[in-house]
Amino acid sequence: MSNPFFKKKKNIKLNDILFSLGLKKQKINLKVNDIKELEVASKTDITFFNSLQYLELIKKTKSNLVITNKKFANFIPRKVKIIEVQNILLSVAKITSIFYPMAIDDTSDLNLKIIDKKKFSKSKFGTNVLVGENVKIGNNCKIGHNTIIEKNVQIGNNCNIGCNVIVKNTIIGNNTNILDGAIIGKKGFGFYPGKKNNIRYPHIGAVIIGNDVEIGCNNTIDRGSLSNTIIGDGTFLDNQVHIAHNVKIGKNCIITGQVGFAGSTIIGNRVMIGGQAGISGHLKIGDNVQIGGGSGVINNIPSNTKVMGYPAKNIRKFIKENRANE
Amino acid sequence: MSNPFFKKKKNIKLNDILFSLGLKKQKINLKVNDIKELEVASKTDITFFNSLQYLELIKKTKSNLVITNKKFANFIPRKVKIIEVQNILLSVAKITSIFYPMAIDDTSDLNLKIIDKKKFSKSKFGTNVLVGENVKIGNNCKIGHNTIIEKNVQIGNNCNIGCNVIVKNTIIGNNTNILDGAIIGKKGFGFYPGKKNNIRYPHIGAVIIGNDVEIGCNNTIDRGSLSNTIIGDGTFLDNQVHIAHNVKIGKNCIITGQVGFAGSTIIGNRVMIGGQAGISGHLKIGDNVQIGGGSGVINNIPSNTKVMGYPAKNIRKFIKENRANE
Amino acid sequence: MSNPFFKKKKNIKLNDILFSLGLKKQKINLKVNDIKELEVASKTDITFFNSLQYLELIKKTKSNLVITNKKFANFIPRKVKIIEVQNILLSVAKITSIFYPMAIDDTSDLNLKIIDKKKFSKSKFGTNVLVGENVKIGNNCKIGHNTIIEKNVQIGNNCNIGCNVIVKNTIIGNNTNILDGAIIGKKGFGFYPGKKNNIRYPHIGAVIIGNDVEIGCNNTIDRGSLSNTIIGDGTFLDNQVHIAHNVKIGKNCIITGQVGFAGSTIIGNRVMIGGQAGISGHLKIGDNVQIGGGSGVINNIPSNTKVMGYPAKNIRKFIKENRANE
Repeated sequence: MSNPFFKKKKNIKLNDILFSLGLKKQKINLKVNDIKELEVASKTDITFFNSLQYLELIKKTKSNLVITNKKFANFIPRKVKIIEVQNILLSVAKITSIFYPMAIDDTSDLNLKIIDKKKFSKSKFGTNVLVGENVKIGNNCKIGHNTIIEKNVQIGNNCNIGCNVIVKNTIIGNNTNILDGAIIGKKGFGFYPGKKNNIRYPHIGAVIIGNDVEIGCNNTIDRGSLSNTIIGDGTFLDNQVHIAHNVKIGKNCIITGQVGFAGSTIIGNRVMIGGQAGISGHLKIGDNVQIGGGSGVINNIPSNTKVMGYPAKNIRKFIKENRANE
Repeated sequence: MSNPFFKKKKNIKLNDILFSLGLKKQKINLKVNDIKELEVASKTDITFFNSLQYLELIKKTKSNLVITNKKFANFIPRKVKIIEVQNILLSVAKITSIFYPMAIDDTSDLNLKIIDKKKFSKSKFGTNVLVGENVKIGNNCKIGHNTIIEKNVQIGNNCNIGCNVIVKNTIIGNNTNILDGAIIGKKGFGFYPGKKNNIRYPHIGAVIIGNDVEIGCNNTIDRGSLSNTIIGDGTFLDNQVHIAHNVKIGKNCIITGQVGFAGSTIIGNRVMIGGQAGISGHLKIGDNVQIGGGSGVINNIPSNTKVMGYPAKNIRKFIKENRANE
Repeated sequence: MSNPFFKKKKNIKLNDILFSLGLKKQKINLKVNDIKELEVASKTDITFFNSLQYLELIKKTKSNLVITNKKFANFIPRKVKIIEVQNILLSVAKITSIFYPMAIDDTSDLNLKIIDKKKFSKSKFGTNVLVGENVKIGNNCKIGHNTIIEKNVQIGNNCNIGCNVIVKNTIIGNNTNILDGAIIGKKGFGFYPGKKNNIRYPHIGAVIIGNDVEIGCNNTIDRGSLSNTIIGDGTFLDNQVHIAHNVKIGKNCIITGQVGFAGSTIIGNRVMIGGQAGISGHLKIGDNVQIGGGSGVINNIPSNTKVMGYPAKNIRKFIKENRANE
């Protein structure tokens, strides 16, 4: 989670957090360091528990302070202090905003400047390349015309970034290609549908792109909300792929054109996905999985499985049913 | 329909219209004010009737002059003068071209200039922002780098327009965000497949985007042909959404990634649509409808219904069938 | 195949080719002119045979030198010299790299310059239009702002190119429109999944776009690998369409929004395809075929057929089944 993109406030008083949630202050002078997910939270961090899916994680969390609701309170270990709320995720969003007040703003950085080619003399740049403060670009890179690289972005060695690319809140490894028109690192499509209007939540995650990756033309890859969006080493994405916030794609995957991933789904290594397939949110897809073109995946898929269909099922079953249907 | 984008000619002689359709001139000195759809046409406008779906509207139209064909002529009220043609919509296109001779040209406006920041001193702008004549931008807006805003576009207060955005023939409310790479306001994909080649028709509609709206990255939203394309207040669109001409989306809808709408479909309020779903043209989707990801909607959907599937059906039915299928 | 985009080396020694494939040199002083597909290879070209689908073509090939594997070697006519390899396509990629050493590099051309309007005085240009060497643009064209046209691209007369368009390795006919944000001519998504990493292969094909064509906003059209990607005269593509390498689309087709074509598929004339349909790779779709929106086409379709569904089937069958299902 530690990324250079969103400055964190230090040591927020618990009572200030309670106040922001509309809860009563307590006779306690506790200070909180950060808000983190169950598996990475330390003793001084606040965390949250919002699904029995995470029962093993809550048992092992190092955090002493957890946001949850009445229904889940019974599952929290005794040693952990509970802050009971009505709406867990909305509370998490509010607390995140306290620690990371800038992370809710996702407007374009207007303080970019035409790149100073002297400063990056070991790489090559096209016309009208705009970069923000503290951008790092390795050696032997090529950055195409009209491309925008916002502040604090890090790009490794031997990378080719195309034209009309927009990159923010992103760390890119070595030997990676980002093709024309890709838009990487904006906040995810995350908010709570309110009665009056939709309430956005802050996105403090980054996009982490590995080595030897290829990101196709006109891809859109959103950054994570609390955790990062990750594209593993050696993974190739074709054109017009959409990757929502918190998605984690493993190594050496091949994702063909117009595939879409909903938020927080985790994809294993060496996964192959055919064109226009869609993967629902919060799923786990194992290693070496093959997903046929046009499939709609709405359940977890174990490793070494081939699926196809809408909803996706074992490919032999899909073929058999459709043969019977002819 | 009255929008600032396409200049209308005044008072065309009926005989000039008949001539353009290859029909005989009549012994009449009538002048026509405009071409409009049934429900909005006034006494001096010409209108058209091309489907029994609009039977109630033709009964109530204020227009005295209607384009139709032999088959539908019997349904026209006696007081209304009929112009009988072979191909109603092709005739409408021809007449629209007479009233709005510029609306068939959809090429880029090459007379844009780098924005004069002094003129819009209450908003902020990136590098290489190009604007056309008579553009209106409210206070406290941010417009990103390389963004293009063509002539007569109106943007309200507190709007954030991203980078590489292209906007034409569009009116935007307050507090609305248009994210990077969105392309808004070009003519729709509308034409008649001819024997020799496709015949385009003029698009005189605009795109009307409400308050508190969010338009995702790389969205494409086409303007209307005769009526406007509308995105209602509080509606959020995710990345890579495509909205065809004349589509009208209600308020507080949530449309996730890669969804597509075919032309002239009307979506109610508080509708939620999952990723990659497709909605056919000329449909009516009620309020509070939920459409599952990947669905293909080919029929009207009543309010307060959840559907999923291809073709989309009641979600309980979809789940039941697919369970039986496992 | 002869296109101006990739410079070919002349007369490569067969023994150099064998060496690059890790094969033993032979006591022969043969020189090879080029690598071509079966039906177009001449006497002095090397070709390849990798599927029984091409049995008729191998019987008739003019080439005297064919790459194949053990399994297919028996089908090669006696007069043709066989070079037997383990992996045919990987070998083809290696040989192509020898003849066309520049075709594997697909990075942006950074040597573009703001267009010299005097040189193209019969056409009109927006701001920040960048062009490469030896670009040809006909009369009466309009090229929008921020558009990039790389070296050797040819554009006919009366064409309208929108804004933020990127065109490389492409030849465009007359009266053709390319709308905003389209990206045309990059290499296809072609490579061999290796054990360690994916191995790219060179793309020496171009994109050939006919007369009276319309390419929609944010389309992505990849160039061919060995043959060209072709869009026939009078064909219209809506927004967000994706066309993979080697696809050949006939004349007067109408392809609506978000449709995707996988590699090497051939589409006939006057084909109509509804929104979001996907067409698998290496298929033949006949003339006058109509494919319903959202369909997934995984088999060849004979001419004059209407299909719909996933997988796509005869539309009457699709409707009947879904009626029974209601």
